[in-house]
Amino acid sequence: MRRSELFVSTRKQAPADEESKNAQLLIRAGYIHKEMAGVYSYLPLGMKVAENIKQIVREEMNAIGGEEMILSTLQHPHIWQATDRWDDAKVDVWFKAALGKDSQVGFGWSHEEPMARLMTQFISSYKDLPVYTYQFQTKLRRELRAKSGLLRGREFIMKDLYSFSRDRAEHDKFYEQISESYMRIYQRLGIGDITYKTFASGGPFSKFSHEFQTLSPVGEDTIYFHEGEGVAINKEVLSDEVLADLGIARDGLVEKTAVEVGNIFTFGSRYSEPLGLFYTDEKGIQQPVFMGSYGIGISRLMGLLAEHFADDNGLIWPRNVAPYQVYLARLSSQPEVTKAADQLYDQLENDGISVLYDDSDLRPGEKFADADLLGLPLRVVASEKSLTAGGFELKLRTNTETSMLPKDKLIDSIKQFTSEP
Amino acid sequence: MRRSELFVSTRKQAPADEESKNAQLLIRAGYIHKEMAGVYSYLPLGMKVAENIKQIVREEMNAIGGEEMILSTLQHPHIWQATDRWDDAKVDVWFKAALGKDSQVGFGWSHEEPMARLMTQFISSYKDLPVYTYQFQTKLRRELRAKSGLLRGREFIMKDLYSFSRDRAEHDKFYEQISESYMRIYQRLGIGDITYKTFASGGPFSKFSHEFQTLSPVGEDTIYFHEGEGVAINKEVLSDEVLADLGIARDGLVEKTAVEVGNIFTFGSRYSEPLGLFYTDEKGIQQPVFMGSYGIGISRLMGLLAEHFADDNGLIWPRNVAPYQVYLARLSSQPEVTKAADQLYDQLENDGISVLYDDSDLRPGEKFADADLLGLPLRVVASEKSLTAGGFELKLRTNTETSMLPKDKLIDSIKQFTSEP
Repeated sequence: MRRSELFVSTRKQAPADEESKNAQLLIRAGYIHKEMAGVYSYLPLGMKVAENIKQIVREEMNAIGGEEMILSTLQHPHIWQATDRWDDAKVDVWFKAALGKDSQVGFGWSHEEPMARLMTQFISSYKDLPVYTYQFQTKLRRELRAKSGLLRGREFIMKDLYSFSRDRAEHDKFYEQISESYMRIYQRLGIGDITYKTFASGGPFSKFSHEFQTLSPVGEDTIYFHEGEGVAINKEVLSDEVLADLGIARDGLVEKTAVEVGNIFTFGSRYSEPLGLFYTDEKGIQQPVFMGSYGIGISRLMGLLAEHFADDNGLIWPRNVAPYQVYLARLSSQPEVTKAADQLYDQLENDGISVLYDDSDLRPGEKFADADLLGLPLRVVASEKSLTAGGFELKLRTNTETSMLPKDKLIDSIKQFTSEP
Repeated sequence: MRRSELFVSTRKQAPADEESKNAQLLIRAGYIHKEMAGVYSYLPLGMKVAENIKQIVREEMNAIGGEEMILSTLQHPHIWQATDRWDDAKVDVWFKAALGKDSQVGFGWSHEEPMARLMTQFISSYKDLPVYTYQFQTKLRRELRAKSGLLRGREFIMKDLYSFSRDRAEHDKFYEQISESYMRIYQRLGIGDITYKTFASGGPFSKFSHEFQTLSPVGEDTIYFHEGEGVAINKEVLSDEVLADLGIARDGLVEKTAVEVGNIFTFGSRYSEPLGLFYTDEKGIQQPVFMGSYGIGISRLMGLLAEHFADDNGLIWPRNVAPYQVYLARLSSQPEVTKAADQLYDQLENDGISVLYDDSDLRPGEKFADADLLGLPLRVVASEKSLTAGGFELKLRTNTETSMLPKDKLIDSIKQFTSEP
C-alpha cells in the first residue's frame, strides 16, 4: 500500500478525553477513531491488525474442530427469560430498545442462549455430539464506565466458542484441548511468556472456571502466582480452602496485576435444560447436553498488544499481527531515489511481503517519527545517501542499529525475518 | 469439508411462520437460522456464501480506490442531531437504548454522519481529496414488518461506501465509475442480465439518485424500462416531465417488479456542512466537501440469489458464491467405495477445489435430495456401480444429465468448470 493512497494521517496528540495509553497510541497512529467512551471505529490499519488476530484465533479454533458461523445481534427476550437472564436486575449490561408498541429487543452481550436454542434444531441423538461452534461477534454492553480504551469497551469484538458434549468426561477432554489451544494463541501473539491460566470462580457445575491473564500494570485484575508450582489464582477465589485444594502454600505466592485475555466456563446443563436442549443416549434415555463456553476478546488483545509492545516513540507490533511487515520510507523525490524505491516496493509486494510505502513529501524526520509511531516490524530507507552507499538502510523497530544493504541482500534479510516461525 | 464434521442437517419443512421463499429454502438447507422476524443467524454454509459475495464486492471496491474500514454500531445522538436525523419523527427506523440515567445511544442504521465526522480528522486540504472509504456493516433497523426473509431484514449486512470529493465534477466522475463497478458485481453474481440501473428520486443536490434493480416477482419495487433506449425508471419518479427530460416515450415502457440491489446517492454538502467537513482549495478558500454514498445489501443479494436461482428441488448457487464447488456423495460404505471417494476428496482438495464430501450413512435418495437442496454447482457420485463402470458419476446442478467419467477425466472436467470466468 502506498501511503499516498491511504486517507489516514498520524496525529501529534490524542483527544484530550482519552485516558488510556493503548487508545491514545492507536488514535495517534491512525489505527482507530474514538466515537464515544468505550466505542471505537477501526480505520484501515486497525482493521488489518484486528483481522490478523482473528485469523490466528480462527486457525487454532478450526484445528480443534471448531465450526465458524455468526449469530444475530438482535435478541428476542423470550429465550433469555427462559434462563432468567433478561431482567436488568440479573444482567446489568443489556442494551434494550423498543421494537413494536409493547415489545422489546435486546442487543447481544453474550450468546449462550441463542446458540443453545439453535442447537435444539440439530442435536437430538448422541450421534450428533460433540459439536463446537464459534463466531467473531461485535458484542454490545452497557458499561457505565469505559475508560480503558480497547481493554474494556461498550462495543467490542469477541471470539466466543460453545461446546456441546454428551457428558462431563467428553466435556473435560475438550476443555483441556482448548486450554492448550488458547496458550498457543498467546504464544503466536508474543505474550505466551507473560500469560497464565488462572483459577477463577466456578458455578454449580464446576468448582472453578479458568481465565487467561496477561501480566500488565494496566490490568483490572489481581492474580497470585506460584512460580515453583506453575499455578495462578485469581484474587477473588484465593482462600485457605482453595490453597489446600490445590496443594499450594501461601508463602510462595506473588501478587500481580493482569488483564483477562480469555475465559473458559463449564456450564453443564445450566442453559441446555431450560432451553430444551436434550439428546437421546445409547440406551435410549434423554439427557441434557453438557455445555461449555470459551471467550477471547479480539479487540481487547489488540489493545493489550498496543499497550504492552510500545516505547516512548510509539507502537511495536508483534510480527504476526502487524498490518504491514515493512515501512519503506523514500526520503527524496529525486528521480533515481523514486525509481529505486518504486522498484523495491514492487519487488517486495511481488514476493508476498506486505509493505507500507511512504511515497509522501513529508520531511525525513516526520517519516522516521511516523515509522516509529506506526510500529511496523521493519523500516527500510531509500535515500540519495543509501543509494550512494550501494543500497538501502534496514532497521528493526525494536532496535536502534541500522545496516546498509545492497538490494538482493536486503530482500533476503527481509524474507528471512518474515518467515521465522 | 466432510459432512460428518458439519453440525448442520437439512430439514423437510421450514418454520411455519416463515413466509418468504428465500428464507424457507435457506433454512431448510441449513444455511441460516431464524431468530425472529427479519433476524437471521448465518450457519457455516450461509456464512461462506455471504463471505463470497462480500469478497466479490470487496475486489470491485478496492479496484476503484476504496479503502476498507469499519465504523461502530453504537451511535452518539450528538452528530445525528447536527444533521437533524436523530428525531424519530425524521427517521423512523432507529433502535435507541438507554445508556446512563439521562443519556441514550442509537444503533447504526446508516453511517453518513459518523463517516463525515471522522473525515474532519483527516481532510483539511484539496490535497487530501478525493477519499473513498467503505465497510461491511451489520445494520440494525426497526422495521415493523419484516416478512421477506433476507430481502428486508431488521438486521442485515450492507456494504456502504462514502465518497469525499472536491466538487461536483470530481464527484460525477466517481459516480460513473462506481456505477460501472456495481454492474460488474451483478455480472459476477450471475444477475447482470436482469439488473438495471434506474432513475430514482434525488434530493437538493441532484435531480435523481440511482438504484440498481433486479427483476424478480417478489420485489417490493415497480420499475419501468424501455428496452430500445436501455433506460429504466422507478415508479415513484415516473412523470411526463421526467420522460421528457430523459427523451423517452411512454409507449415503449414495460412495467416490471424488481428488487433494489444497490443505490447510489449524490449528497453534495448535505452532511459535510452541518458536521463541519470543509477543505481549503487551491486558492486558499474554504469549501464544503462534496459527498456521495453507495450501498449494496450483501444479505439481500444472498436472499435474491437464493430466491432467483432455485427450482422445485432447492437452491442453485451461481458458481462464484457457492459455499463449495462439488457435492461428493459416497453411496456405500464398502471399503473400495470409501477408499476411492476418500482419495478423490483428498485429491480435489489438494488441487484447490472446494468439496463438501457426504461421507454420512444416509440413504442414496436422501443424499441426492440434499445435493439438490444445498445447490452446489457440481454433484459427483462414488458408488459400487460407478466404480464398476470405471470411475465416478458427474452431474451439473442445473442439468439432469449425468456422465460417467474415469478419475483423471473427472478431475479435468471439474477443473475446467471451476476455472471458467
